[in-house]
Amino acid sequence: MVSYSEDKDAYLKRLRRIEGQVRGLQRMVEQDQYCIDILTQVSAVTKALQSFSLGLLDEHLSTCVVEAAAAGGKEADVKVREASEAIARLVRS
Amino acid sequence: MVSYSEDKDAYLKRLRRIEGQVRGLQRMVEQDQYCIDILTQVSAVTKALQSFSLGLLDEHLSTCVVEAAAAGGKEADVKVREASEAIARLVRS
Amino acid sequence: MVSYSEDKDAYLKRLRRIEGQVRGLQRMVEQDQYCIDILTQVSAVTKALQSFSLGLLDEHLSTCVVEAAAAGGKEADVKVREASEAIARLVRS
Amino acid sequence: MVSYSEDKDAYLKRLRRIEGQVRGLQRMVEQDQYCIDILTQVSAVTKALQSFSLGLLDEHLSTCVVEAAAAGGKEADVKVREASEAIARLVRS
Repeated sequence: MVSYSEDKDAYLKRLRRIEGQVRGLQRMVEQDQYCIDILTQVSAVTKALQSFSLGLLDEHLSTCVVEAAAAGGKEADVKVREASEAIARLVRS
Repeated sequence: MVSYSEDKDAYLKRLRRIEGQVRGLQRMVEQDQYCIDILTQVSAVTKALQSFSLGLLDEHLSTCVVEAAAAGGKEADVKVREASEAIARLVRS
Repeated sequence: MVSYSEDKDAYLKRLRRIEGQVRGLQRMVEQDQYCIDILTQVSAVTKALQSFSLGLLDEHLSTCVVEAAAAGGKEADVKVREASEAIARLVRS
Repeated sequence: MVSYSEDKDAYLKRLRRIEGQVRGLQRMVEQDQYCIDILTQVSAVTKALQSFSLGLLDEHLSTCVVEAAAAGGKEADVKVREASEAIARLVRS
């Protein structure tokens, strides 16, 4: 069982909204809308993706990482390393 | 005429690819794929959106801002202020 | 003459405050303060550096780039390319 | 005992180098160096601060968070929430 299963519908809903925002960007380009307005909209999509990531990461820490640590053994180290690498990719992107 | 018209097809193509990546994220969630793999994919989408923005902004500076400056008058100040605000939103998102 | 000369004192003041914040971080580490509090303080320093960059970039666009564009010729292209590359570094860092 | 104690010297060394970079920025401004070169240097300082944060956060997850989870009880939830909030501040700054 993956950690985010119970909020699966909420995650899917957020991703569908983001997909709708990306289609909105396509319409803006097709209609030759002003660059600055398009850039504002891209910033909104980026923020929505960030919130999605931060939610998923928080849930991952609360479940996978905490469970591995509670179980003891080397698995916790692996989970923390994976999480740290994912955080570094988020911070640097 | 807006500044990005000549590259309109290229911009639309990039946005369609980003839309496909967001649909890919939905499939990953539906299939209960591993959180960390989903996070890696979100970082890729964020980077693609950033490249799109940076391309659009570069074109905006080379055309709108440079043309307003070449024409003289107050319009250049307005264009620079708008561009600076858009850059601040990109940097902070 | 460089573009930021008139605000030189204001820029130096901001950088001295940032230097003080970095020394504050050293004291926090020396005193074994809590990681999370140190991370909060690092985020504040990063934001202060971002504001410094955005101010400098805005001034660069309003002066160097606008002047090169007003003068006509190839110099405006060079200035825009340089500015776009600096913006990309800021967005990606 | 705080979690980063054993690497304290390494953390202090990194912060002193960052302090030196910030003083280098002051010299660049005093000497009226070119804006774009100053911006390049600010990006380098921002990246150094990010690496410092990511190192500290990784250590915090491996020690404080893992220990709280291994001990069981509510403390793990508190530690994860704190870490998630710190990550959000890093991602958004």
